[in-house]
Amino acid sequence: MTAKQRLKALAAGVEAALAVCLRGKDIPEGLLASMQYSLDAGGKRLRPGLCLAFAALHGAAEETAMPFACALELIHTYSLIHDDLPAMDNDDLRRGKPSNHKVYGEAGAILAGDGLLTEAFGLMAAGATGLPGSAALAAIAEIARAAGAAGMVGGQALDMEYTGARGVPLEKLRDMHARKTGALITAACTSGAIVAGADARAVENARVYGREIGAAFQIADDILDVTGDTASLGKPVGSDQDKGKTTYPSLLGLSPSAELARQCVERAKAALGGMTGDTADFLRQLADYIVDRVQ
Amino acid sequence: MTAKQRLKALAAGVEAALAVCLRGKDIPEGLLASMQYSLDAGGKRLRPGLCLAFAALHGAAEETAMPFACALELIHTYSLIHDDLPAMDNDDLRRGKPSNHKVYGEAGAILAGDGLLTEAFGLMAAGATGLPGSAALAAIAEIARAAGAAGMVGGQALDMEYTGARGVPLEKLRDMHARKTGALITAACTSGAIVAGADARAVENARVYGREIGAAFQIADDILDVTGDTASLGKPVGSDQDKGKTTYPSLLGLSPSAELARQCVERAKAALGGMTGDTADFLRQLADYIVDRVQ
Repeated sequence: MTAKQRLKALAAGVEAALAVCLRGKDIPEGLLASMQYSLDAGGKRLRPGLCLAFAALHGAAEETAMPFACALELIHTYSLIHDDLPAMDNDDLRRGKPSNHKVYGEAGAILAGDGLLTEAFGLMAAGATGLPGSAALAAIAEIARAAGAAGMVGGQALDMEYTGARGVPLEKLRDMHARKTGALITAACTSGAIVAGADARAVENARVYGREIGAAFQIADDILDVTGDTASLGKPVGSDQDKGKTTYPSLLGLSPSAELARQCVERAKAALGGMTGDTADFLRQLADYIVDRVQ
Repeated sequence: MTAKQRLKALAAGVEAALAVCLRGKDIPEGLLASMQYSLDAGGKRLRPGLCLAFAALHGAAEETAMPFACALELIHTYSLIHDDLPAMDNDDLRRGKPSNHKVYGEAGAILAGDGLLTEAFGLMAAGATGLPGSAALAAIAEIARAAGAAGMVGGQALDMEYTGARGVPLEKLRDMHARKTGALITAACTSGAIVAGADARAVENARVYGREIGAAFQIADDILDVTGDTASLGKPVGSDQDKGKTTYPSLLGLSPSAELARQCVERAKAALGGMTGDTADFLRQLADYIVDRVQ
């Protein structure tokens, strides 16, 4: 099985859980439609896949990790909705479909995001069964830290600040992406390990793996924005440049950017050490797959 | 000590905890300023006060309940920031000061809200000490349910839907306010009882108290919007009518609205049963204080 096929298999379980996670909750109709619209818009379900994989790597049952996996996707989905708002990146398209606010209006989109973010924490707190309360709380704290003002929200704030600015140095670009994209990808890995009861060292290894593939993923995205095509991206090519965003290719050039991504992937794989078995192999292949997209 | 004085005393402890809850977290400067601006804007700190009072009523130490009390205020503050946005209620003033987006722009305000909401859950998950993990998770789930799409966020969605609409019936108005204002006030009471390890019956009594004072509070607010003055409201008098909002006075008239609020307060006090002691007395006085504002 290739990494892509395995990720798809994991995603199928996630889709099934996501399809029911907002059901029977007495959510007003219009708001529910707006939340579900973005949640159903697809994507690779990378974050839930990573969470489930790291949980499996450390011996947890899939149902133990599933509420956390789904919560990560709810948080990711809310962040996309808010990032697309006119006051933010003002994107009309997301994954080839009209952005949430183009369909449900700005208020509807803001509230759908707020609702998804809040449900994510409700899902984890109410769905944490089959693991010690302390592990559940640690995983929730880990995900909140990654998603919050020091992590993903902070990364978006810095992205807004840097957009249109000249002379953003590589170090700041790295820090911004480590927050905006890297933090939640990392938390997907660490939370999976935490809910499985992995020890501190294993959680740190998960952290390195997540951080490095998160960086590789972002560099690959920057490259694809230059070299990809609109159909597979689901958004116009060259949109970073049009928006005045500093990118890895704009700072380093295309080929050195690809080399940098490759180095990240090697560090990610090294963090798995000598671990054997299907899941460890999948995580190695997945790391390669992220940069294979651009080479 | 009057209810107002006791609430002020509780609020002083909350202010001290709120003042440090965002410190040392590596939050980007501009985002931190925006979050802190709204958090520092004051208010009565009613929700944290209720949480601490119900925790004390059932024997918990103040420090056990404090992370939950602060989280409730972070959530309340985020909701005010998002509600004031141009796409929502478009309010330029909040508590007599310029709204967050008037100072930090729309993107800054959206992100400050997202950051505060996420930190709230991080604070609870990381700060839950001195209580069983299962109680902490139950309190987090309770607060998430109240703040989320079926509760506060859903109430705001319904409020947007009803604004400018004619013929909104009393039943729908009640349901909207029970979500928008009532749910978080109720969760403040129940989460306080839950972190103190109160039994199911005591938690249900806390729920009734919260629900009824939440309703009374909203009716009083609607009345004050007609009869109050700009200085004490911190916003223009008559803004509900200007915005085309259905209110209790617009449906029932002023005097029957005040009578309805009084009935809610009596039901709230009845939910405390024969409980004795300083804290039970305070909660009775607090219920009266809410409607005394308008009589």
